[in-house]
Amino acid sequence: MIGKMLTRVREKSPLVHNITNYVTVNDCANIILATGGAPLMADDAKEVEEIVAISSGLYLNIGTLNTRTVESMLLAGKKANALGKPVILDPVGVGASELRNETARKLLENVKFTVIKGNSSEIRALYNNTKTTGGVDVQEEDIITDDTLDSAIAFSKKAAIKFNSVVAMTGTIDIITDGRLVALCRNGHSLMAQITGTGCMLGSMIATYCGGQPDKAFEGAIHAVSHMGIAGERAARKVLEQNLGTGHFRIYLIDEVGLMTEEILKEGAHIEFVKK
Amino acid sequence: MIGKMLTRVREKSPLVHNITNYVTVNDCANIILATGGAPLMADDAKEVEEIVAISSGLYLNIGTLNTRTVESMLLAGKKANALGKPVILDPVGVGASELRNETARKLLENVKFTVIKGNSSEIRALYNNTKTTGGVDVQEEDIITDDTLDSAIAFSKKAAIKFNSVVAMTGTIDIITDGRLVALCRNGHSLMAQITGTGCMLGSMIATYCGGQPDKAFEGAIHAVSHMGIAGERAARKVLEQNLGTGHFRIYLIDEVGLMTEEILKEGAHIEFVKK
Amino acid sequence: MIGKMLTRVREKSPLVHNITNYVTVNDCANIILATGGAPLMADDAKEVEEIVAISSGLYLNIGTLNTRTVESMLLAGKKANALGKPVILDPVGVGASELRNETARKLLENVKFTVIKGNSSEIRALYNNTKTTGGVDVQEEDIITDDTLDSAIAFSKKAAIKFNSVVAMTGTIDIITDGRLVALCRNGHSLMAQITGTGCMLGSMIATYCGGQPDKAFEGAIHAVSHMGIAGERAARKVLEQNLGTGHFRIYLIDEVGLMTEEILKEGAHIEFVKK
Repeated sequence: MIGKMLTRVREKSPLVHNITNYVTVNDCANIILATGGAPLMADDAKEVEEIVAISSGLYLNIGTLNTRTVESMLLAGKKANALGKPVILDPVGVGASELRNETARKLLENVKFTVIKGNSSEIRALYNNTKTTGGVDVQEEDIITDDTLDSAIAFSKKAAIKFNSVVAMTGTIDIITDGRLVALCRNGHSLMAQITGTGCMLGSMIATYCGGQPDKAFEGAIHAVSHMGIAGERAARKVLEQNLGTGHFRIYLIDEVGLMTEEILKEGAHIEFVKK
Repeated sequence: MIGKMLTRVREKSPLVHNITNYVTVNDCANIILATGGAPLMADDAKEVEEIVAISSGLYLNIGTLNTRTVESMLLAGKKANALGKPVILDPVGVGASELRNETARKLLENVKFTVIKGNSSEIRALYNNTKTTGGVDVQEEDIITDDTLDSAIAFSKKAAIKFNSVVAMTGTIDIITDGRLVALCRNGHSLMAQITGTGCMLGSMIATYCGGQPDKAFEGAIHAVSHMGIAGERAARKVLEQNLGTGHFRIYLIDEVGLMTEEILKEGAHIEFVKK
Repeated sequence: MIGKMLTRVREKSPLVHNITNYVTVNDCANIILATGGAPLMADDAKEVEEIVAISSGLYLNIGTLNTRTVESMLLAGKKANALGKPVILDPVGVGASELRNETARKLLENVKFTVIKGNSSEIRALYNNTKTTGGVDVQEEDIITDDTLDSAIAFSKKAAIKFNSVVAMTGTIDIITDGRLVALCRNGHSLMAQITGTGCMLGSMIATYCGGQPDKAFEGAIHAVSHMGIAGERAARKVLEQNLGTGHFRIYLIDEVGLMTEEILKEGAHIEFVKK
């Protein structure tokens, strides 16, 4: 099943509207292009509804949120819902401050999300709307391992049902679920945590896949997660072979996302559908 | 004629003030340095006039405009005019929203631009102040080919006269005109459209050239367009030879802009002056 | 003495809160990761105090300051002081506008800084709170050479005493002083001035070292300055050997920061402690 959607994305080249943080925004734009879409960043409340109207998907990321852009996210999200366009939420650092929790709450109340993507600490903080004690990275106690996998799957399903959204919970094992079906993805490389932006890039890549085929959010999230994971593995191999570092890893990662083919995706994806 | 201005820029190292989008701002700063200038980004209304006063050129880019920075663009642009410093407009995505059109209108009414650079969809939307249906990339019907070249030239001349500015209309064939003289540039590579920021980088490079020699805006725009196009060709060659992707293309592009010499520029530039 | 702190930073992986400019913010995040810390960018007044509370260090950079973020810097800085967490000031372009001078004055009045890092023009403008005539780069008359070294050392000590802070004054020779002890660092490479962001990256790296060992600010600043300088030398060697340009230099620089070991640091550091 994996693979075809990549070709579809590249044929359609969906315009993806991003309201995202200023730390990794350049990486998001380049990843959308490498995946096969066209990026557009616009965050002024006066124009976001018009921009959503010409776009095929919307990516909301609260990494460096502020009062001005939160308003824009709400307007854009509601408009996307009204027009039936996919909306992806990336609740970066939720749990780290009241502002992030309050913003997440407002977004969940006002916008129906197609896919919510986050590490397990973020999905947990989003679910409970509680504060955590760390930054934007996963907390040690939330790391998904084979031992904690069953409870993590059960939790992600609960979250998907509560949010009425596909949930993509990232970690060493990625869990993607629509509340009923569950897919596990075991691609990726530890170097991905040593650069900034892999999470954001994945978020905007999910928006690109969903923009390409809006009726297939679950499959789109699986494709994006695998696509990014395999690109990470291939980039890591090149970096390690040449004794390079994280500067080059980021560059090779963008390369490999763009050089991905249906064939490489099909062969490289370690996806398992969980029955139960 | 092509070449000399590069040496002049590098001798003077003009300080270029940028009010630009947060997506590609880092690339603009690095390109200005690679070209031979010194970048400065400042967008608060309280300081932009002072910053313009110590700069040799001003680059205004509406890629991620907002109410706060539009005000700053107006103040900076008027001040640059008062001080006789070159001002470059990059109307990114004009036509995509009322806010962009209104901003463009205000800028054109209040600021005399030295060079206006955009793809043909942007120049058209700017000229007509109408809305288009796409994002920040050129619309299919506006792509300049040998078949549509004559009408594109005629249009760009009309635009230059209306705006009382040099117009640099970019595409597979770039058209640069001051309303009377017309130069065509046939450099560049298709990979340039597969990364974000080549347009913005070119805009800030034009500001660097104009900052180096403010009385030669037409020639400065031609130099920048050729410089960027040839760098793109050379970068593409290296990327394709090594089977690399767009991550590396962006890095090689910055390399090649910096490694450019008068000689390479003179030999590589495919410029044709149109008589009529 | 040099070296050990690097291991300490990597064991602790301090969370570093950055309120910084949007030009080089991605480079700062990647450098913090390469050094061994974890970056977090948050600039809304409503959340910065909470974010400081979970962080080990705070980095304030006024490169693209605006009214909104200046307020956030003040709140974050005071909170960090109250909690005894290290605060690093990077007064980018101070002297270039009244807004920058006024902001610097307010920050110095309200926040006790652990380390203030800047080129000699910036430290001078900060000391005198006067305007300069250039941009964000060092002014020609302020360049530190062996001839002007004695007076530069005397000045940096005066500045450290006035600011009650460690001062790291960067240039071809870097001077680090707490007002009593003085260290000179003669590492680095001229290519570092040909890309944007090396100054900001160094600032956030100082915050990372200080976050790792808050009681050793003087040593932390020396480590960061050497670490960055040696990485610059090693990156330059690779770039020049392969006839590459500044695009690659930036990538190799991040690589080398991450590949740094205690051993390389110890062997490569050209540090001299000045007696007197």
